Amino acid sequence: MAAKGWPVCSKSLKGVILDLCGVLYDCGEGGGVAISGSVEALKKLKASDLKLRFCTNESQEARATFVAKLQRLGFDISVSEVFSPAPAAVAALQQRGLRPHLLVCDGLLSEFDSVDKTNPNCVLIGDAAEKFSYQNLNKAFRILENLENPLLLSLGQGKYYKETDGLSLDVGAYMKALEYACDVKAEVFGKPSSLFFQSVLNDMGLQPHEVLMIGDDLVNDVGGAQQCGIKGVQVRTGKYRPSDETHQTVTADGTVDDLAQAVDMILSHRQ
Amino acid sequence: MAAKGWPVCSKSLKGVILDLCGVLYDCGEGGGVAISGSVEALKKLKASDLKLRFCTNESQEARATFVAKLQRLGFDISVSEVFSPAPAAVAALQQRGLRPHLLVCDGLLSEFDSVDKTNPNCVLIGDAAEKFSYQNLNKAFRILENLENPLLLSLGQGKYYKETDGLSLDVGAYMKALEYACDVKAEVFGKPSSLFFQSVLNDMGLQPHEVLMIGDDLVNDVGGAQQCGIKGVQVRTGKYRPSDETHQTVTADGTVDDLAQAVDMILSHRQ
Repeated sequence: MAAKGWPVCSKSLKGVILDLCGVLYDCGEGGGVAISGSVEALKKLKASDLKLRFCTNESQEARATFVAKLQRLGFDISVSEVFSPAPAAVAALQQRGLRPHLLVCDGLLSEFDSVDKTNPNCVLIGDAAEKFSYQNLNKAFRILENLENPLLLSLGQGKYYKETDGLSLDVGAYMKALEYACDVKAEVFGKPSSLFFQSVLNDMGLQPHEVLMIGDDLVNDVGGAQQCGIKGVQVRTGKYRPSDETHQTVTADGTVDDLAQAVDMILSHRQ
Repeated sequence: MAAKGWPVCSKSLKGVILDLCGVLYDCGEGGGVAISGSVEALKKLKASDLKLRFCTNESQEARATFVAKLQRLGFDISVSEVFSPAPAAVAALQQRGLRPHLLVCDGLLSEFDSVDKTNPNCVLIGDAAEKFSYQNLNKAFRILENLENPLLLSLGQGKYYKETDGLSLDVGAYMKALEYACDVKAEVFGKPSSLFFQSVLNDMGLQPHEVLMIGDDLVNDVGGAQQCGIKGVQVRTGKYRPSDETHQTVTADGTVDDLAQAVDMILSHRQ
């Protein structure tokens, strides 16, 4: 398909932020599969003078684990380039003296090694996948209900994501279930939080108008970036669906078939 | 504790609608336990000239099953007196040619024997309890997502209920999860739907002002009844919590300790 639109920032572009799942690869059993052309596209981007960061709402595994997985798929990526919700949440927990009951995948637990989890005074959920059992949700609910001021923290608010065998409910759906049951509003870490995008910009040392976000999630990637003043391009891979191109509240600054096409357009506009 | 308030309708009262779980008994493993004094209170009510119906959002078991359970606990109750969401949903499904994918407890399936479930064009959820697994929720989500016009039906929208071992999330929480993930608004059968209360009134042959609703759920029992013009009394058993007495949107017409106190007040006001 043809690319649709292209951000006017292209010529002044100094940096690119990439989402991971649905842009570089499709997640799923056995580590997922690289999206066609994305390994080469990332190589081209890295060979340019553009600053690059990865911004993901991945909350099933610790950064070291999923970065190693991406490296095995052929991607040139290191932990220090990756921003994910768990470290942002850990910083907030420690700063505010919060002791979470964690409902997250076992693979993410190591990110919380430094956090006091005794006698919980809040509940923190990530994309717990199979651990989102009836029993575990009831347990989280009961802890929240027993708190004088129930506090729910959520690593992202995604609705669903694409695995190799189909779409799966993301942490946002379970967040809504607990919000409704407990009459609370969750505090969200990760995309689309402006705080989260701002921390990436700070690390890059760039202004919003100098950066481009590329993601498959119209609301969390594109919409989140735009709220922060960053132009957002959507790829037609991952969880993209045609109805995204006529979405009621979020309009991407550009829509391209995949990362390969996005990188070709970025580099050609800079020549 | 003292009773608080009492509906002015008491002297013209011709009928009473009772919720089941949390009013007659606390549900849970092994059939639950009768709430102290409730067996005798129901006997007194039945010995009066008041018409009586039971209105429940029970959606784990077929009516025949949970009525038998209540009889074993000592309650004088028959299937024909009980209104529950499943039969109301079955009527709507058949009338509108809907073929549901069911996410309900095995014990409820028999209520849907007469319904065509091939090639689903909607998803219907009840309080599926342990069947609310990550896998089953994903399956329901994928079916909804593949429909051109996703249609979600829900047997009630309760937030939680009390089991003998603590509070458990009710169908409403899972309904909110699917609503959020699919961008849909569920169609709710059972309380607090006015259609549901109206069908009970029709069966009793009474006007709203001649009837009193007694329940433990402030929003679904009391609030639902009030929206239909029926006075609603809350009991301080089941899922009742002190904060209900200062709720922002629903104020019970009366609050009593339990069914026994409610029945004593009803009968004493009629003398």
